[in-house]
Amino acid sequence: MSLEQFNIIESTLREGEQFVNAFFTLDQKIEIARLLDAFGVEYLELTTPCASPQSEIDCRAIASLGLRARTLTHTRCAMEDVRRAVGTGVSGVDVVIGTSSYLREFSHGKSIAEIIGMAQEVVGWLKTQSVEVRFSTEDSLRSEPEDLYRVYAAVDQMGVDRVGIADTVGIGNPRQIYELVSGLHRRVRAGIEFHGHNDTGCAIANAFAALEAGASYIDTSVLGIGERNGITALGGLIARLYAVSPALVGKYNLPLLLELDRLVAGLVRVDIPFNNYVTGFSAFTHKAGIHAKAVLNNPSTYEVLRPEDFGLTRYIHIAHRLTGWNAVR
Amino acid sequence: MSLEQFNIIESTLREGEQFVNAFFTLDQKIEIARLLDAFGVEYLELTTPCASPQSEIDCRAIASLGLRARTLTHTRCAMEDVRRAVGTGVSGVDVVIGTSSYLREFSHGKSIAEIIGMAQEVVGWLKTQSVEVRFSTEDSLRSEPEDLYRVYAAVDQMGVDRVGIADTVGIGNPRQIYELVSGLHRRVRAGIEFHGHNDTGCAIANAFAALEAGASYIDTSVLGIGERNGITALGGLIARLYAVSPALVGKYNLPLLLELDRLVAGLVRVDIPFNNYVTGFSAFTHKAGIHAKAVLNNPSTYEVLRPEDFGLTRYIHIAHRLTGWNAVR
Ligand SMILES: O=C(O)CCC(=O)C(=O)O
Ligand SMILES: O=C(O)CCC(=O)C(=O)O
Ligand SMILES: [Cu+2]
Ligand SMILES: [Cu+2]
Repeated sequence: MSLEQFNIIESTLREGEQFVNAFFTLDQKIEIARLLDAFGVEYLELTTPCASPQSEIDCRAIASLGLRARTLTHTRCAMEDVRRAVGTGVSGVDVVIGTSSYLREFSHGKSIAEIIGMAQEVVGWLKTQSVEVRFSTEDSLRSEPEDLYRVYAAVDQMGVDRVGIADTVGIGNPRQIYELVSGLHRRVRAGIEFHGHNDTGCAIANAFAALEAGASYIDTSVLGIGERNGITALGGLIARLYAVSPALVGKYNLPLLLELDRLVAGLVRVDIPFNNYVTGFSAFTHKAGIHAKAVLNNPSTYEVLRPEDFGLTRYIHIAHRLTGWNAVR
Repeated sequence: MSLEQFNIIESTLREGEQFVNAFFTLDQKIEIARLLDAFGVEYLELTTPCASPQSEIDCRAIASLGLRARTLTHTRCAMEDVRRAVGTGVSGVDVVIGTSSYLREFSHGKSIAEIIGMAQEVVGWLKTQSVEVRFSTEDSLRSEPEDLYRVYAAVDQMGVDRVGIADTVGIGNPRQIYELVSGLHRRVRAGIEFHGHNDTGCAIANAFAALEAGASYIDTSVLGIGERNGITALGGLIARLYAVSPALVGKYNLPLLLELDRLVAGLVRVDIPFNNYVTGFSAFTHKAGIHAKAVLNNPSTYEVLRPEDFGLTRYIHIAHRLTGWNAVR
């Protein structure tokens, strides 16, 4: 497993921009990018320059900020798109194509052989440029694993840096992800990336299963914002890994999580969910008497995350009848 | 796996009452109970009558409503408590005791042999009453599996109806839950229940893993409310199972989910999270052009949940630059 050497591909500025309420200005994007960089994410993924003239400007501007995080932009598998992507000065290009029968029939209508042909042209050219190359297949969970593996093996031979699995509709469960990533891990030498939507509540668990199975790159966004109800939330992934060992996330500036969640929530005009990982208002509250008493004695009895490691404090409710005498020492 | 024969133990009126903002009156509890019953959950779990004179009144009142759902109350493993529990007229008693070294040291301070001794007395008496008996071990994920299995084997021999695994601090991940439940499934004839907190984002995935491994009872609450950031959300579990097959949740009245989420959110004074499963405002929104176009052609390209099955509608955003020409047919 790659829990010790994982990387975050932070996609608030790409997947997050696909959230229904997200309309970031360049200044706002720069503010988000700088704060994510200060937090310590390894990569920032940016909306394709092909989306609009403004997204091209934004992409160039963020690529030239001189951040510690590497910048990536996300494009369809087309020569015109990747040429513009490279032209923005990003460190890497994330190419994506649809392989599921749903997408082949209703979206772009290509066969697997055609997909590999398109990949060959696009990846072949990208390899002549000095950029990291990632190739992923949209809707991987509703694709035939054999189809997927054929595509991945082909792009792996072309020397891509990463291959990506995308649970585009949020249908995957952890055992499936573990299987699919394990199979891929045996077949390619490229790094493995996982991108998962949260429609059925598994985006964090699936990302974790992917890491256990050999992936080392996880896509996140702040508060999980993205298409529909979004993807693996940055804070949620951090909480999950922290529970295995705080050392795994020691490379990040954890107290900035609250600022990140607040910044993005404000920009997209939502409230931080009451039950949000780490930063929701109820995350470190304790109510029932038996809990309150034990937490007063030793917080780890009922807490796996230490609020102080995130610059936060706990709240022990002691005035309600559920609390009982136990809360009073 | 027990996906076809699972039962929901709806704990909004027990775990949910431990949510920091929850102070339900009896009338409010009755309203919640009736709506959950109309939705079709199999069981309602109620706060122990030992918490206060009012909780005893509430428990009796709900047990005597004549609902289709069976009523359970939740008690510590003590004779005094289970006597009062049975006295309320509920159909079953959910007994819980701590087995983890954290809880043994800092909360009640008992050894495994003492725990089994206490269980014997309490379960022995409960078996003379005509109630369902459930025995669970708090903080099961930080307990030694061998300790757990000893306790479960002992209560299984006494004839309990269900044994419960509780991820009290939300530290478990799906592979661990799968392992633990599989091991238990081989050792007991009693039904298996799973209760999981969501601190690290796995409560839904863990519940699903438990079902895959042989559990057939899952604890939920509306919006997931409970201690800290809560437990497996009712709507989230429904979404997860629906994604496997809508038939699995065909026994529930799905369009009531929105009413349930709204009712409980209002009573505990929180907003439904923007990204909530099924009922969050963004759950059925589509923005990027390629998504919008494909969803117009065939919704299942980018949707695993059909909004109409939940009495809801989708929203396709077509006025933004990310949408592009693709959205316009
Ligand atoms: O580029 C990818 O791997 C993912 C694209 C995407 O957002 C998705 O498929 O959900
Ligand atoms: O009774 C149970 O199994 C669970 C009790 C509880 O709420 C917990 O341990 O989190
Ligand atoms: Cu996505
Ligand atoms: Cu609980």
